Amino acid sequence: MQTDDKAQETDNVSVALADGMHFIGDIDGFRIDTDENYGGAGSGLQPLRLVLLGLAACTAMDVISILRKKRQRVSGLDVEARGSRVYEHPKVYDAIEVIYRVRGKGVEPKAVERAIELSETRYCPAMAMVGKAAGINGQYEIEEVV
Amino acid sequence: MQTDDKAQETDNVSVALADGMHFIGDIDGFRIDTDENYGGAGSGLQPLRLVLLGLAACTAMDVISILRKKRQRVSGLDVEARGSRVYEHPKVYDAIEVIYRVRGKGVEPKAVERAIELSETRYCPAMAMVGKAAGINGQYEIEEVV
Repeated sequence: MQTDDKAQETDNVSVALADGMHFIGDIDGFRIDTDENYGGAGSGLQPLRLVLLGLAACTAMDVISILRKKRQRVSGLDVEARGSRVYEHPKVYDAIEVIYRVRGKGVEPKAVERAIELSETRYCPAMAMVGKAAGINGQYEIEEVV
Repeated sequence: MQTDDKAQETDNVSVALADGMHFIGDIDGFRIDTDENYGGAGSGLQPLRLVLLGLAACTAMDVISILRKKRQRVSGLDVEARGSRVYEHPKVYDAIEVIYRVRGKGVEPKAVERAIELSETRYCPAMAMVGKAAGINGQYEIEEVV
């Protein structure tokens, strides 16, 4: 039988009820506690914030990778994601602001813009998927390191 | 000034570069390490799996909550999510299987079906958002506890 080069990869995760609304999540043996509460109360993380964190981490990895390939001298990168939830059920995010804070020496704004654009349009699966449901607006700041 | 009852809530998360592709995530002061590696290697979790875990936890909380309101005697609930990623960039999930495993005494299949349907169509923001990009197929099993 021929191997299918385009075989799909499958990601597998699970959650198990602990008590109340506390579910213990498992990703590759890592435990992540989830709960319905907001603001750090309760026994774990609010599920939609995990989605938002996945999006922030996904695009952050793209941007650092592209900036390194472009030989930009980046020493730091923080990415913040702010999701605005609508009032009506199912209370989706309708708008997400993504703020990239780049630190380094002589980092070119055009390189940062291009890296963000490539992540948004080509590389980041979380951006591609969530972007079907919410408007995503990327902004950046560059801090010169002396 | 009148208070806007429909004011949007904002979720705020961030990631900060540690080294390599390792980013330290922050949700309400909880730390979640993320990295590009698969299968539990590397320094943290693969971002898209966090999205999938958020989805699993989101729908799990809906389903347990609805089953309790329906006075079903549920003693356990595991939810597994399997996301199939396409081969081409941006390697999104095109299909997600969600398997609900309910344990309890005399739990009614119709109640479980309705709970899943309500989560999919009305309550779960992660399902609503990710469902714009991927086909989501829910299945369930009920285990009678003696």
